[in-house]
Amino acid sequence: MSMKETKTKGKTAEEMAASQRNIGVAEFFAKNKHLLGFDNKRKALLTTIKEAVDNSLDACEEAGILPEISVEIIEMGEERFRVIIEDNGPGIVKEQIPKIFAKLLYGSKFHSLKQSRGQQGIGISASVMYGQLTTGRAAKVISKIAPDAPAHHYELKINTSTNEPEVLDEIKKDWNNKDHGTKIQIDIEATYQRGSQSVDEYLKETAVVNPHVMIIYTNPKAEQLIFPRATEQEPEPAKEIKPHPYGVELGVFLKMLEVTESTTVHQFLTTEFSKVSGSVAKDVFEMARILPRTNPQNIHHEEGERILKALKKVKIQSPSTDCIAPITSELLEKGIKKEVNAEFYTSVTRPPAVYKGNPFQIEVAIAYGGDQAADKSARLMRFANRVPLLFQQGACGITKAIQQLSWKPYGLNQPSGSLPVGPLTIVVHMASVWVPFTSESKEAIAQYPEIIKEIRLALQEAGRNLAKYTAKKRRVKDELKKRSFIEKYIPHVAIGLKQILGLGTGDEEEIIHNLQKLLEAKRGKIQSMEFDASKNTEYDAEWAKIGKDVNSDHDDGEQKTAEEGDEE
Amino acid sequence: MSMKETKTKGKTAEEMAASQRNIGVAEFFAKNKHLLGFDNKRKALLTTIKEAVDNSLDACEEAGILPEISVEIIEMGEERFRVIIEDNGPGIVKEQIPKIFAKLLYGSKFHSLKQSRGQQGIGISASVMYGQLTTGRAAKVISKIAPDAPAHHYELKINTSTNEPEVLDEIKKDWNNKDHGTKIQIDIEATYQRGSQSVDEYLKETAVVNPHVMIIYTNPKAEQLIFPRATEQEPEPAKEIKPHPYGVELGVFLKMLEVTESTTVHQFLTTEFSKVSGSVAKDVFEMARILPRTNPQNIHHEEGERILKALKKVKIQSPSTDCIAPITSELLEKGIKKEVNAEFYTSVTRPPAVYKGNPFQIEVAIAYGGDQAADKSARLMRFANRVPLLFQQGACGITKAIQQLSWKPYGLNQPSGSLPVGPLTIVVHMASVWVPFTSESKEAIAQYPEIIKEIRLALQEAGRNLAKYTAKKRRVKDELKKRSFIEKYIPHVAIGLKQILGLGTGDEEEIIHNLQKLLEAKRGKIQSMEFDASKNTEYDAEWAKIGKDVNSDHDDGEQKTAEEGDEE
Repeated sequence: MSMKETKTKGKTAEEMAASQRNIGVAEFFAKNKHLLGFDNKRKALLTTIKEAVDNSLDACEEAGILPEISVEIIEMGEERFRVIIEDNGPGIVKEQIPKIFAKLLYGSKFHSLKQSRGQQGIGISASVMYGQLTTGRAAKVISKIAPDAPAHHYELKINTSTNEPEVLDEIKKDWNNKDHGTKIQIDIEATYQRGSQSVDEYLKETAVVNPHVMIIYTNPKAEQLIFPRATEQEPEPAKEIKPHPYGVELGVFLKMLEVTESTTVHQFLTTEFSKVSGSVAKDVFEMARILPRTNPQNIHHEEGERILKALKKVKIQSPSTDCIAPITSELLEKGIKKEVNAEFYTSVTRPPAVYKGNPFQIEVAIAYGGDQAADKSARLMRFANRVPLLFQQGACGITKAIQQLSWKPYGLNQPSGSLPVGPLTIVVHMASVWVPFTSESKEAIAQYPEIIKEIRLALQEAGRNLAKYTAKKRRVKDELKKRSFIEKYIPHVAIGLKQILGLGTGDEEEIIHNLQKLLEAKRGKIQSMEFDASKNTEYDAEWAKIGKDVNSDHDDGEQKTAEEGDEE
Repeated sequence: MSMKETKTKGKTAEEMAASQRNIGVAEFFAKNKHLLGFDNKRKALLTTIKEAVDNSLDACEEAGILPEISVEIIEMGEERFRVIIEDNGPGIVKEQIPKIFAKLLYGSKFHSLKQSRGQQGIGISASVMYGQLTTGRAAKVISKIAPDAPAHHYELKINTSTNEPEVLDEIKKDWNNKDHGTKIQIDIEATYQRGSQSVDEYLKETAVVNPHVMIIYTNPKAEQLIFPRATEQEPEPAKEIKPHPYGVELGVFLKMLEVTESTTVHQFLTTEFSKVSGSVAKDVFEMARILPRTNPQNIHHEEGERILKALKKVKIQSPSTDCIAPITSELLEKGIKKEVNAEFYTSVTRPPAVYKGNPFQIEVAIAYGGDQAADKSARLMRFANRVPLLFQQGACGITKAIQQLSWKPYGLNQPSGSLPVGPLTIVVHMASVWVPFTSESKEAIAQYPEIIKEIRLALQEAGRNLAKYTAKKRRVKDELKKRSFIEKYIPHVAIGLKQILGLGTGDEEEIIHNLQKLLEAKRGKIQSMEFDASKNTEYDAEWAKIGKDVNSDHDDGEQKTAEEGDEE
């Protein structure tokens, strides 16, 4: 076919070239809002608040401040809300305010390997952009970094073509009652609804896994909920680590060689990577036939590939894992006790592991029985770096690990490839210097085999504890059945003896008593396995109700339906 | 708590500010490769080929060329492959080559509303970047736009800091046997495996829903598979449409007002939107109390909001839907007949509908019974704009719609909230000017309520057709049971009559024959509903095997496991 024929029907290469254009990052995300967690109006409210609160928590942790966060939602009109989040964090220096709040892909956490809630430098600016796209209004930010410093007030929008901040107003302000902190106000199109996947649920679960946080929450009905601090102990600030050679790809490695400030490759290897000692580096260069004193800028493709291959062959210690701060199994268990009145609890913290050079750690808690429905799918609570994950359960590696595990050995039913069915709540937390999320909205963990495996191992350990309990419960039940059978005959035996021996009524009762004692002595005293609702003193029924759908304890089906949202 | 206390423990605002940095788009995606479909080495191979093939098909369609695409995979070493894709497309003008292949977020499709495979301007550059990151090697591109034009050859990398192309080599070359077209070669780290979610499956399904395409595929074992063209008829080139007012958000609307070249708001509304006639515009301005001759640049926030509100109140025709090119139900059915030897087929094409102002159209085909396993979950084949979706089935709106529908009325079992179980294949295609994918890797469709609803309606219609068949089959089965019961007695009746009437053996046979005729006359002739494997002449057993796991027809569980990939 010649071009002549086709020209009459379609476009030529030149015509097509004319429509090729740059696509701005902000434009891209404005058109793909669902990638950022703004798929529908209900979720938009949650995402906006989540991004602000996560940032506050990260900043407080980094500054060593016990966080006190106020979240206020004000209804401004039909499907329009004003969201105000204020913290007592370290504040933000004046010059950084516009970029932090009104430029996508700007932040401090992307280029470091350190456990934190934020990672990408997208979240809060995305919320500002969503507000501006749906209501046309600028975000208002005020921040103060010290008692004697002035507070700076900004009105900000994002230029969606250039992804640069537009400063509409900028003034110094008094913020007298405040030593330091940041407050942000965003107007957005949204809907508010209680129940699962709501702001309420997010804040409650955040409080559970961050017991050092105090949250004051005012909902659109002007009702105030206070999540008090459960401990004055702040978590240790997270440590930053260098990349581990096992997780580095060739392209990245060549790029690092190009831009390094090291003057020799030996210095480069030993200072820019985790766990590469002088002797490891020596082995590597020998194996790669490269002089250790070579200038990194003189290492090109082939040599770089040789060094990296040698690095992956030489035995190197696993990356340090003291950079990971788990919630701890005690705290996880305490949290779940407050939320779920069960008869049996168990929790497991796995030792840290590594995926693609990134250290991570898995924790699991399970609550079984009690007032949980026995005929429904297990309830699943997912967390990543102390942030509750409320959406995309089906796409999450955590869900996958649970579905792949066989739950029958632990005494539970399980439709093939599904969550187990039974009176069960499963809590899973992944802590890592880099959590691989399936989308920018950070709702589900990508299904890396190493991560799935660690979750499975944690679930199996918790499952074995559970199986011991369910097996014991089954034994007690069997024993009680046998005893009740024997006990049925005791009175008849007593009557028989009374008649044969010609005893009185008092003697008959004594015989019954003695026979029962004998039975107990022979078969052992039995521990009651009945569910005693008052035994779990940490359970808080009012608390448990927050963020739950009315008329439904937990129902996976309903939760999924809620995800559909409320879009017109 | 004062800052003094905290300083000893954590960082100050100034210290934090020092680590704030820009994050490059390419850097961002390099670190989040799984967002682009490069989660594991097996998927990386598929994604690389998919992005190149999708681009070739789009370009051919736009140019009105019948596509002929060659895909070659060469094993270069341990987990290293060279991928070469060559098309007979319109070619790319010299100046555009570096940006199209080595700059993320650059393309022609993002800023238009038009049905196409590509949307974001990310795909092929992401493949180039992945190759460079994993093998350190540049991509090689050659392109030619006319028989008498020179071919241009480039060696390209992406500068991941700046997201700009790095041209390593650039020469004019002869490409004598070629009138026009483009060829790209990328070296990547990958693994090759046949079976579901493989390159084989992707190419086969692509051929099914693009019957005008010819694909020549050489796998790493140097085996050649040819998917021949099934029709010489090219699809109509897709039409571009303007945005419909119902789908426009305030922020976007204000931005459009700012940058428009129209000199009056009347002109602005009537030329930059779909379906806004002069009289509609007049009504809008009256309702909004704005003079139609106002200069758009003089419309600010409040007035803009009034106009948009009025626009959404006034009755406006739905957007044109002639911009949507469905596969057509005939073609869908033909495709599924070739793939699945079933006893019953049905297909449905819904009328076009609209979500957020974007026209879209749903098509569904169902194959029931035959040689499909009755005790497994239905097999699901998903397509968006004629591209097969092989991953993230669990996260996809199509899956959701199927799970939410009750399949029992159509004669199928269904574990609650799951796919139906039975001898069933379900094919769903969404065509739209903008498909909302759940991630940049375009593997699953976001769960917009309007889309879910349309899929449900299509499934219900197909389901009703299916129910008629399954009901008839059940009736025939019942009838056959009754008849076999009656037939059992016919010989006995004949023997009785023979003895009573003193007849001969020949008469007995005649009686049997007559009684059987009588039975048929009374109860009607019955159509055989037995599965006749030879009836579907379009079924091609060899073809059906391509891209399927050995020892398994289809198994949702296994398919999901494959998604885990092969990462170390």
